[in-house]
Amino acid sequence: MARGLFVGRFQPFHNGHLEAVKSILRECDEAVIAVGSSQKSHEPDNLFTVGERIEMIYESLKEAGLAGKCLVVGIPDINYNALWAKHLKILSPGFDFVYSNSPLVKRLFEEERVKVKPLKMVQRNEYDGSHIRKLMLEGKGAWKRLLPPAAARIAAAVKAEKRLKEIMGSDKL
Amino acid sequence: MARGLFVGRFQPFHNGHLEAVKSILRECDEAVIAVGSSQKSHEPDNLFTVGERIEMIYESLKEAGLAGKCLVVGIPDINYNALWAKHLKILSPGFDFVYSNSPLVKRLFEEERVKVKPLKMVQRNEYDGSHIRKLMLEGKGAWKRLLPPAAARIAAAVKAEKRLKEIMGSDKL
Amino acid sequence: MARGLFVGRFQPFHNGHLEAVKSILRECDEAVIAVGSSQKSHEPDNLFTVGERIEMIYESLKEAGLAGKCLVVGIPDINYNALWAKHLKILSPGFDFVYSNSPLVKRLFEEERVKVKPLKMVQRNEYDGSHIRKLMLEGKGAWKRLLPPAAARIAAAVKAEKRLKEIMGSDKL
Amino acid sequence: MARGLFVGRFQPFHNGHLEAVKSILRECDEAVIAVGSSQKSHEPDNLFTVGERIEMIYESLKEAGLAGKCLVVGIPDINYNALWAKHLKILSPGFDFVYSNSPLVKRLFEEERVKVKPLKMVQRNEYDGSHIRKLMLEGKGAWKRLLPPAAARIAAAVKAEKRLKEIMGSDKL
Amino acid sequence: MARGLFVGRFQPFHNGHLEAVKSILRECDEAVIAVGSSQKSHEPDNLFTVGERIEMIYESLKEAGLAGKCLVVGIPDINYNALWAKHLKILSPGFDFVYSNSPLVKRLFEEERVKVKPLKMVQRNEYDGSHIRKLMLEGKGAWKRLLPPAAARIAAAVKAEKRLKEIMGSDKL
Amino acid sequence: MARGLFVGRFQPFHNGHLEAVKSILRECDEAVIAVGSSQKSHEPDNLFTVGERIEMIYESLKEAGLAGKCLVVGIPDINYNALWAKHLKILSPGFDFVYSNSPLVKRLFEEERVKVKPLKMVQRNEYDGSHIRKLMLEGKGAWKRLLPPAAARIAAAVKAEKRLKEIMGSDKL
Repeated sequence: MARGLFVGRFQPFHNGHLEAVKSILRECDEAVIAVGSSQKSHEPDNLFTVGERIEMIYESLKEAGLAGKCLVVGIPDINYNALWAKHLKILSPGFDFVYSNSPLVKRLFEEERVKVKPLKMVQRNEYDGSHIRKLMLEGKGAWKRLLPPAAARIAAAVKAEKRLKEIMGSDKL
Repeated sequence: MARGLFVGRFQPFHNGHLEAVKSILRECDEAVIAVGSSQKSHEPDNLFTVGERIEMIYESLKEAGLAGKCLVVGIPDINYNALWAKHLKILSPGFDFVYSNSPLVKRLFEEERVKVKPLKMVQRNEYDGSHIRKLMLEGKGAWKRLLPPAAARIAAAVKAEKRLKEIMGSDKL
Repeated sequence: MARGLFVGRFQPFHNGHLEAVKSILRECDEAVIAVGSSQKSHEPDNLFTVGERIEMIYESLKEAGLAGKCLVVGIPDINYNALWAKHLKILSPGFDFVYSNSPLVKRLFEEERVKVKPLKMVQRNEYDGSHIRKLMLEGKGAWKRLLPPAAARIAAAVKAEKRLKEIMGSDKL
Repeated sequence: MARGLFVGRFQPFHNGHLEAVKSILRECDEAVIAVGSSQKSHEPDNLFTVGERIEMIYESLKEAGLAGKCLVVGIPDINYNALWAKHLKILSPGFDFVYSNSPLVKRLFEEERVKVKPLKMVQRNEYDGSHIRKLMLEGKGAWKRLLPPAAARIAAAVKAEKRLKEIMGSDKL
Repeated sequence: MARGLFVGRFQPFHNGHLEAVKSILRECDEAVIAVGSSQKSHEPDNLFTVGERIEMIYESLKEAGLAGKCLVVGIPDINYNALWAKHLKILSPGFDFVYSNSPLVKRLFEEERVKVKPLKMVQRNEYDGSHIRKLMLEGKGAWKRLLPPAAARIAAAVKAEKRLKEIMGSDKL
Repeated sequence: MARGLFVGRFQPFHNGHLEAVKSILRECDEAVIAVGSSQKSHEPDNLFTVGERIEMIYESLKEAGLAGKCLVVGIPDINYNALWAKHLKILSPGFDFVYSNSPLVKRLFEEERVKVKPLKMVQRNEYDGSHIRKLMLEGKGAWKRLLPPAAARIAAAVKAEKRLKEIMGSDKL
C-alpha cells in the first residue's frame, strides 16, 4: 500500500487541488494532504484559518467520495528551511512519495530520502490561489465555480469576500 | 448535524480512547480527535511523534469502521493557557461540543462559549497512558491487548518498548 | 463605569493620539492604551522601544491631566492573527469597547463579542507616524510640534533623529 | 526625580506587595510595578491572567491613593536568563533603582549597571503568594483579608477559589 | 591580549571577508567571527546553512594559516533589536572590540559599552554577497575567484549554483 | 579525513570532557564540540553562559595543544526531540561520527543515518557536572582540580562559586 503526500497552503482549496488529489490517488492508495502555514489567517495571502481550510478539504473530499482515502494534517511554519521536510515527516502519518513541482520542496525531501514525483495540475491560470482571491475581492462570486461546491459553500458561509475586503482595507496587525 | 471534539495526547491511543470515540459518535454525527502536545515525542511521557499517533488513531478507526466519521488534527502546545481553547478552535474544523472530564478544559471552553459534555471513559485503571507506558517498559508486550489491534501493530512496528527503554536510560536532550 | 481600549504602535505618540484619547474619555470613564509590536524597536517603522513609548504616553497624559484615567499596556506581536484579539483581552485589564477604524480589528474583536466604535482622529495627514518619522529623518526638528511636549522631549532625549538616521543607513540586523 | 522598579508575579497582589510599594514610594517619586510571567495563567502557581493582575494592582493603588505615582507593565518570560534584566529594561519606562531581595535579580541588574536596593517586606509568612493560594483552595475566603480590598474584590469576581480548584483537579493542558 | 568581533551573515564567506579578518588580526590577537541569521538557509539571500558557512570560514582560515587565531560562532536571529547586541555578547566568548561599518550595530554595541571600530573592507563592489549570489545564479562559476579557494570548494561541493536556481524557481515554503 | 562530534552541556567543561576529546582525536582527525542548551545560564544546572563555556573549552584546548583540531559550536534547545539530531547536523560543520553513550542520542542520530560510537569517559564519579557544581556550592575551590587549568581560571574569573550560591538562594526568574 502506498501513500502520497500533497503539500500546499490551500488558500482556498480549489478544483485544481481536487484534480491533483484525484491524480495522486490514481498512483497511490491513500493521500495525505498537508496544510501549510497553519498558524496564518486573516492576511491578504492567507485568508482562511487552518480549521476552515481543513473543513473545506474534508467536505470537498466527502463530496467527491474520496474522504476515506485521504488524511488532512496542519503544518505550522517552522521558519528554519533546512528542517522543514523533516518537520513535515514528523507531523504527518508515514508516506511513500511527495507530489510537488517545487524544486525546493523536491530538494529538501530528497535530502530526507523521500522520492518526489511531479504533481499534475490542470488549468494553472484559473486554478490558482491568488487569482481566486483577486476574484473574491471583486465581490461578485465569480470565484465560486473554481472551487468544489462544498469548499465554495464553506468559504461563502464564513463571508470570504467581506473578510478579504476588510483585510485589504486595514493596516497589518 | 453535530460534531464533537475529543482532545488528548494519545500516548498511545488505547481501547479506552476508542470506546470514548464510539460513545461520542452515539451522540454526534462526527468526531474531531485533537492530538495535543503535537511537537513532543521521545520523552518518558510523550513517547510517540504526532505523525505516529495520528496514524495509530486513523488505522484504529478504519479497523473499527469509524474512519469516515472522524477527523484527526494535531495541536501544538501554546504554553499560554488563557489562549488554549481558542487556539484549539482555530486549528480544528468547526465543532458543536467538547467532550472532556477535565474541569480546566471545561472552564476554558465555556469561556469560549462551547458546551462541554462529560466523557464516558471505561475501565480507567487499565486504559491509562501511564499504565500502558509502564507495561511497555517491562518489555513483555502486556500492553498490546489494551490497544486497538492496529494501534498495537503500529506501536510495535516503531519498536515502542525499545524506544521507551532508551529514553528512560538517557538524560534529557 | 466604562473603559475603552485604544490600540496602536505609537511610533511615536503624537497629538492625534492624544486627541483620540481625549475623545475616548468623553465617552468612557477610563482608557486602556495598548502599545502593539512591543518587542520591536530600532527599525525604520518601529523606532522606539516599548519602554520609551510607554514613557512618552504616560508623561503626555500627566501633562494633559489624564494620567489618572488611563492605563498603558505593552502588547507583543503574536503572529497568529486569529488569536490576536483574545491575546489583547488577556494582556489588558477588562474593557467595554474598542475604539478603532481598522475593519480587521473590528472583525477580530467582534468575533470576541467586543463592541468596536469608530475612533475620531483629527488632521490625519500631519498626525501620522510615517509622516513624523519622515520629518525626523530630515533632522530639523519639524516633527516636534506634532507631538505633545512631553513626548517630544522624551524623543529628543533619546536622540530620535540620530537613531533613525543610523537605522536608515544600515542593513537589517 | 527617582523611579524604582518592583518586579514580581503578583499571584495575587497582596498587602505585603502594597506595603512594599509604599515603602518604595518613601524613597522614590514613582514606582514601576513589573508583572512577570505575563503569558502564564490557569496554572497552580500562576492563577490569574496578567490582565487580571494589572487590574488588581491598579485598583488597589487607586484605593490607596497611589495610582498617580505608579506604572504597571507586563513582562513575558524570556527563558534566557542572561538577557532577562535587559529585557526588563526595554519593556519598562526608565527607572533608577530596582528593589529586590533576590540575589539573582541583584546580580543580573548589576551586570546592567542598575543599582539594586533591598525590598522591605512585612509579615512574610502570611503575605505570601503560595500561602494565599493554599487558603484559596480551602475555599473559605480566609485569604481575602490578606489582599487589599480592591484586589480581593477582583479575585472574588473572577471566582478565584473555583478556578484554582478546577486547575488542581485537572491534568496539565 | 585583545579580541575583536566580526559579525556578518557570510552568504557566502568571500575574499573581502577574509581580508577583513586579516585586517582585524593586525590590531587584535584573536578574532571572533559571528555568523548571523544562523537558523536561515535555502532562501534567495540566505543560501547556505550555518554549518556550511562555519565550515567555509574554518577551512578558509586554515588555508590562510589563521585558524588558530579565530573562533567562529553561530548567532540565531532574535527579532528583538534592542536585545541584539547583548544576545551577541552572551553567545560569544569575550571580546574587546567590535569591527563594523553599520551605524546601527555601532549604536547597539555602544549602548552595551563595547567600542566599535570601522571595518576595513576592500573592493566592495565585487566582494559582496548579493553580487556573488547573482553570479551563482548565472551558473558559470564566475563567483569562484571571489571566494577563498576552500570556501569556493565547499560551495561547489554542496552544488551552490543548482541550489540557488532551485530556490529562485520555487515559492517560499 | 574524519570528523567526530561530541555533544554535551559542558556545565562546566572538565577533565573528563578533555580526556574524551583526546580519545576522539585518537580515532578522528578533527572533533566538533557541540555545546547544548546554549540559551541557558544562571540556573542551578546551567551555571555558565554559552559564551563562557565556549571560552573554557577553547582555552583548555589551546592549553592542551588541541585547538587546531577542534571546532566548537553552540546549540540552542529546540524542544522538539524528533528534530534534534537534524538540528544539530545543520548547526554544525559536517561530521562523520557522533560519540555518545546516551541511547536516545544514539537512536536519534541513527535515524539520521549517522553512526554513533561509544564515548570513553574516565573516572565518571568525579568528572561529573553535578558533582562539580556541588563542590562549587561548598565554596572551597575543591572543584578546581577537576577542570583543565584554563577552564578553572575562567570559572574563577566569573566568580562561579558566588554566582551559583546566588542562584541557589533565589526563586526562579
